[in-house]
Amino acid sequence: MNLTKELIHRIQSVIGAHKAPVPLHVPEFQGRERELLLDCINSGWVSSVGSYVDTFEEEVARLSGCAHGVAVSNGTAALQIALLVSGVLAGDEVLMPALTFVATANATSHLGAVPHFVDSAHDTMGICPASLRAHLEKIAEVKSGVTWNSTTGRRIAAIVPVHVFGCPVNMNALKSVISDWPMAVVEDAAESLGSYYHKNPCGSLGGIAAISFNGNKIITTGGGGAIVTNDLTLAKRAKHLTTTAKLKHKWAFIHDDVGYNYRMPNLNAALGVAQLEQLGDRLKQKQLLFDAYAKAFNGLIGAKLFTAPEGSKTNNWLVTLMLERDKADQRDSLLESLNMANVTTRPIWTLMHKLPMYVGCPRADLTTAIDLEARVLNIPSSAKLGVLQENVA
Amino acid sequence: MNLTKELIHRIQSVIGAHKAPVPLHVPEFQGRERELLLDCINSGWVSSVGSYVDTFEEEVARLSGCAHGVAVSNGTAALQIALLVSGVLAGDEVLMPALTFVATANATSHLGAVPHFVDSAHDTMGICPASLRAHLEKIAEVKSGVTWNSTTGRRIAAIVPVHVFGCPVNMNALKSVISDWPMAVVEDAAESLGSYYHKNPCGSLGGIAAISFNGNKIITTGGGGAIVTNDLTLAKRAKHLTTTAKLKHKWAFIHDDVGYNYRMPNLNAALGVAQLEQLGDRLKQKQLLFDAYAKAFNGLIGAKLFTAPEGSKTNNWLVTLMLERDKADQRDSLLESLNMANVTTRPIWTLMHKLPMYVGCPRADLTTAIDLEARVLNIPSSAKLGVLQENVA
Repeated sequence: MNLTKELIHRIQSVIGAHKAPVPLHVPEFQGRERELLLDCINSGWVSSVGSYVDTFEEEVARLSGCAHGVAVSNGTAALQIALLVSGVLAGDEVLMPALTFVATANATSHLGAVPHFVDSAHDTMGICPASLRAHLEKIAEVKSGVTWNSTTGRRIAAIVPVHVFGCPVNMNALKSVISDWPMAVVEDAAESLGSYYHKNPCGSLGGIAAISFNGNKIITTGGGGAIVTNDLTLAKRAKHLTTTAKLKHKWAFIHDDVGYNYRMPNLNAALGVAQLEQLGDRLKQKQLLFDAYAKAFNGLIGAKLFTAPEGSKTNNWLVTLMLERDKADQRDSLLESLNMANVTTRPIWTLMHKLPMYVGCPRADLTTAIDLEARVLNIPSSAKLGVLQENVA
Repeated sequence: MNLTKELIHRIQSVIGAHKAPVPLHVPEFQGRERELLLDCINSGWVSSVGSYVDTFEEEVARLSGCAHGVAVSNGTAALQIALLVSGVLAGDEVLMPALTFVATANATSHLGAVPHFVDSAHDTMGICPASLRAHLEKIAEVKSGVTWNSTTGRRIAAIVPVHVFGCPVNMNALKSVISDWPMAVVEDAAESLGSYYHKNPCGSLGGIAAISFNGNKIITTGGGGAIVTNDLTLAKRAKHLTTTAKLKHKWAFIHDDVGYNYRMPNLNAALGVAQLEQLGDRLKQKQLLFDAYAKAFNGLIGAKLFTAPEGSKTNNWLVTLMLERDKADQRDSLLESLNMANVTTRPIWTLMHKLPMYVGCPRADLTTAIDLEARVLNIPSSAKLGVLQENVA
């Protein structure tokens, strides 16, 4: 049997054969979503102030192992403000993987800062600490505790580890590198709510983190994001800047900084509160789905299921197949055939340095990122597909 | 009777005496809000793609007299992108009233452009065309069809007329000025959905416009905004840039510009669709409230109700009192007393050139704006207070 047929057969053994496309990831509403949304309408509290915003912020912080949470309009806004309060200024460079969703680079650009792309590792799909060190040894120098790119003359102000598809970056090794080249660590935890790195939640592994609650994530607020941190000063500044930087006053409209309107409406926070109550269930369902895929792919030749390294616990956001190197040339025909068979399948993102607006940005050797781009596929990963396994078991 | 007691007495004759504060403006949910929100949950379509987004965009455009609408995350985002697609670049200047909500200046700053503050008129509270002309004659010069600020050396790329509290700017006179100093006209129609200027809806009076659907507006989506325009090219570019600038493809993630995540979730659009169906009712209720206030303030000495000029029809978003000049020194004590009496009362915004981040921006003589800032008060304006009048009548 060829790889295409084999893959369709084995995936359908888990999710069934369907006459319509099985989506990559859909939200599940099994809790108090309807009740809390109606409460917003009945109470009149639908907008940017409301008790659900407060509860959502507390719960997101708690689930991320952080003391403070700030609810915002989406993950891009969260990352932009997390970078801003971490001290990133226009003209600075921000290290990030070339292998990421475009929002990581956009959030940086919106501050007038410059993305600087580094390579990824095979074991996590996130930033490779060893190649990061090699790259910094080549281009970076530290003067008075500040890291500079000696080839561009710009300050390197921060690094953004992205936990790709929920798999935690090797943060211990990354932090060890950064101890020699000081810069802020801003986690892009957009995809990794519920993931753990050595028993610490993603979102609590750097100085501050950004989380996404877009409709395709494990938990959704329709559209939304959050900033989480253990640093009260950063949290307070993030809240202030995302709410138009207005000073408290009985009536006067006084704003003391160029603020943003990045508030999450109470309506969306209500949805989020109901959703967060089900995070444990979702994680279990997604683990069941992953286990079923693992069983189905046992002994498969030509592709293997990506598994998080020892010590890491992924939220299994998107189930990932990695083609063997000699099958990489079949990627596009596999995408064509699997999608035709109603098994929605997606490649990983186009590498950032190939996109026209980022083609001129500084970058490291990207050998592994290029290799991963050619071989990674995502297959249907919705939690409800895991519920099917529960019913089978 | 002194002015304070007189005002409390006359306002309470309209809205009643209450043991808790009567808010300035609260949303009303009298239509299909609950039904459409539950439909989002039942269908699973809560996020950035969905049929309510499409319907909302069509209806907002129609109600604004425009061919195209783009739903976004809020009014600030709408204005930023409207300016961007109108050609405003980093380093350009954008003319706007000093008397506006801070979002007008922030949206400009977020593009790296520079707010340039001009004076307002007593009859509309919006940009004064005559003083605009006098200012431009002093500082502007046109070279090859481009307007420059000869004192700063920067291009003046756009002007943002803000329809304050729903009252339309004198657009005919403003456009006549602009015909001598070419620049884009980007309406800040955040507060003026349902207002008309000589039978044309606000939002259709310039090249493109931004509308807000924040919780305090006449119609709300929780948080949200829209861009409306008759220019298909501008609309398409705005939609593209606000949705991460992703190119359509069966599976590939290709983005061709630095995009934004400014999408309005389908959940919020569903609320908006239900709300827009009631715009006619809200406008009627708010007119009834205005009429009741007008009757109650008849013969009052020391303050008068602001009334839109001939030819304009305001949506009566916020009912506005203007103190007589010799009573301006009582503004703060009036604010204190009225709020103490549970009649929520607010001053107009602090003028932009007084805020620390905008203190250094270029500006015109602001005599009238300063005068208005000292004398304008808003009083309770919720549509449901108009329903009370309906019941009384």
